[in-house]
Amino acid sequence: MKNISILGSTGSIGVSALEVIKANPDKYNVVALAAGRNIELLLKQINEFRPILVAVMDDGLAKELAGMFKGTWDPDVLSGAEGIIRLSTLDGADTVISAMSGASGLLPTYEAVRAGKHIALANKEAMVMAGSLIMKEAEKRSIPVLPIDSEHSAILQSLRGHLKEDLRRVILTASGGPFRNFSLEEMNNVTPSQALNHPNWDMGPKISIDSATMMNKGFEVIEAKWLFDLEMDQISILIHPQSIIHSMVEYRDGAIMAQMGVPDMRIPISYALSYPHHFETHLVPLKLDEIKDLSFEKPDFERFKCLALALKAAEIGGSMPVVLNGANEIAVESFLQGMIKFLDISCIIEKTMEAHEPFPVNDIEAVMAADRWAREAAINVRKSLY
Amino acid sequence: MKNISILGSTGSIGVSALEVIKANPDKYNVVALAAGRNIELLLKQINEFRPILVAVMDDGLAKELAGMFKGTWDPDVLSGAEGIIRLSTLDGADTVISAMSGASGLLPTYEAVRAGKHIALANKEAMVMAGSLIMKEAEKRSIPVLPIDSEHSAILQSLRGHLKEDLRRVILTASGGPFRNFSLEEMNNVTPSQALNHPNWDMGPKISIDSATMMNKGFEVIEAKWLFDLEMDQISILIHPQSIIHSMVEYRDGAIMAQMGVPDMRIPISYALSYPHHFETHLVPLKLDEIKDLSFEKPDFERFKCLALALKAAEIGGSMPVVLNGANEIAVESFLQGMIKFLDISCIIEKTMEAHEPFPVNDIEAVMAADRWAREAAINVRKSLY
Repeated sequence: MKNISILGSTGSIGVSALEVIKANPDKYNVVALAAGRNIELLLKQINEFRPILVAVMDDGLAKELAGMFKGTWDPDVLSGAEGIIRLSTLDGADTVISAMSGASGLLPTYEAVRAGKHIALANKEAMVMAGSLIMKEAEKRSIPVLPIDSEHSAILQSLRGHLKEDLRRVILTASGGPFRNFSLEEMNNVTPSQALNHPNWDMGPKISIDSATMMNKGFEVIEAKWLFDLEMDQISILIHPQSIIHSMVEYRDGAIMAQMGVPDMRIPISYALSYPHHFETHLVPLKLDEIKDLSFEKPDFERFKCLALALKAAEIGGSMPVVLNGANEIAVESFLQGMIKFLDISCIIEKTMEAHEPFPVNDIEAVMAADRWAREAAINVRKSLY
Repeated sequence: MKNISILGSTGSIGVSALEVIKANPDKYNVVALAAGRNIELLLKQINEFRPILVAVMDDGLAKELAGMFKGTWDPDVLSGAEGIIRLSTLDGADTVISAMSGASGLLPTYEAVRAGKHIALANKEAMVMAGSLIMKEAEKRSIPVLPIDSEHSAILQSLRGHLKEDLRRVILTASGGPFRNFSLEEMNNVTPSQALNHPNWDMGPKISIDSATMMNKGFEVIEAKWLFDLEMDQISILIHPQSIIHSMVEYRDGAIMAQMGVPDMRIPISYALSYPHHFETHLVPLKLDEIKDLSFEKPDFERFKCLALALKAAEIGGSMPVVLNGANEIAVESFLQGMIKFLDISCIIEKTMEAHEPFPVNDIEAVMAADRWAREAAINVRKSLY
């Protein structure tokens, strides 16, 4: 029996993770749930999964939630960043599903690693900001950091049983998002609701916008670098609009191992929990003879500037990927609130990166300092635009 | 350093295997070569690779070959079925590449296993005829039987690192051969040279015809059953005309592992020799963004009757797959000699199978008896047709 805590239980990944857990009650047990603002859903999850501890970021919402318990199940309730860290390091958990969105997931994830928890990681921003530090702490304790991203799960599955020294490169597939065939002019006029409508995956708002700008793929390159200890030139990107082949690994003899399946996050979530096993998910199997065609094309770094910016930040290293992420979070939030246009997202990130003097990030405090700098700088860039 | 004997060194697989060996002179050493009738090529191979032992089937050709040595390199020369078995069990070899075509490869392969040699297997007819016996002898001695077929190499690579108990099914891909879109009427009029012209693979005549009838895929189902210890209902076939994805394994969670690459036999040959490593092959890598599309469709068991016959023979078991293979060898040879039409191949096999009373094949003598019966019966069926 695996005892599991979920950071971000009411988000898209959290909800899917609970479905995977529910389908395997003999294998998984929920001990703690942390969520953002959706306390109605959190309450339902509490009554169904009976965690011993819950946490929400906002103090007021935490009190409101505690007042909603009707005596059937009455877990401890924590609040604030500190409460969420206490939850992520809870003694009774072996595995933490890190599925908060954005930089807010970094500290709870980092502290969970330091507390010896196995990590099932969906929060790629944590790896973009502090992949080196997280992996160093995980290695010290021989703790697995297992990806929930479909791409990194595919890479992990394609690496198993083959020798790292024989690897030639990793090929991250990318759907290309909803604007794959849009001109720059068409892209400039897209609305948040268009950008939120991903062709293959049903996801939360932040990652949907990141997919539309392809920043998400840039983040995934950085995540792959840290998770699998790769050089940047060992990672390439291939557009594959159907999102059936989730990623591939090419070996020295020319053999390419690929993992594919229906685009459903329950498969990589399940694998991160059942690793190295594959447990039954009861999903409808992939039928390639019904899909009929899989297609591939080169990525376009000109139209998808965020992708180029992410690779550049990774090459520079140090605090630059933290700045990339911080500026992106500000820009995406501003776009979702209707404050800027779609192409302003990359513009804000680029100008913020240009203004940044990169420094080494040898501890988590340096990461947090770079993040604070980036957010302030990005807001100033945004103000200068309008 | 691996000491290697090759059965069928002048055939398509043998020649490719020698290229792989030549590219890795620090890893592989040729100790023995057996060939059919092409003694000119064999002589060149002898002078280049300097085996200590060679063999050809025909006594006269063996004498002729021995007379061609000019004192530069002078290996022992054996002949006949017995000579080839002596070669395949040679003390100085660790690995035998079994790449003779058809039933003639069975006894040398079987005896190589019993002599404790690691097997790199291209001769699928041996597995169709006596897979159960070969695998039993291999298991007794903990000897690997590593496939050279691209499909089975792909399955092996897709199984590694994952647990057999999590396997749902194996998906063998099939190009569909040169007549994939032919009507039955068009198929009836095809010539041997049309049938020999495979769209993706450059192969010997027997396997090219087997690919055109899709008997080859039926054989591969039977080979997969024995190599990977599968039930027949765990093996399915998917048409994939580009021959880029070489085969796949589906797991219980819905994840499908696939191996892909350019259609070049040097990749599976290399893997069978380097297993579990992938050694450098210096082949041009697969470029999916240039290939652009991979397509898939259901197989057609009505137009490709040989495929249905092979599955039926496997279901019946015992001597029936031996009869399937023996009748197929007679029919293919007859077609290549212009004695019968293309669709007569399946007709001869079907009638031979109908006339056969299956019996258990618990030893190699029973296999050989079924093979002799099948050949005689198939010749009689052929005579009754014209």
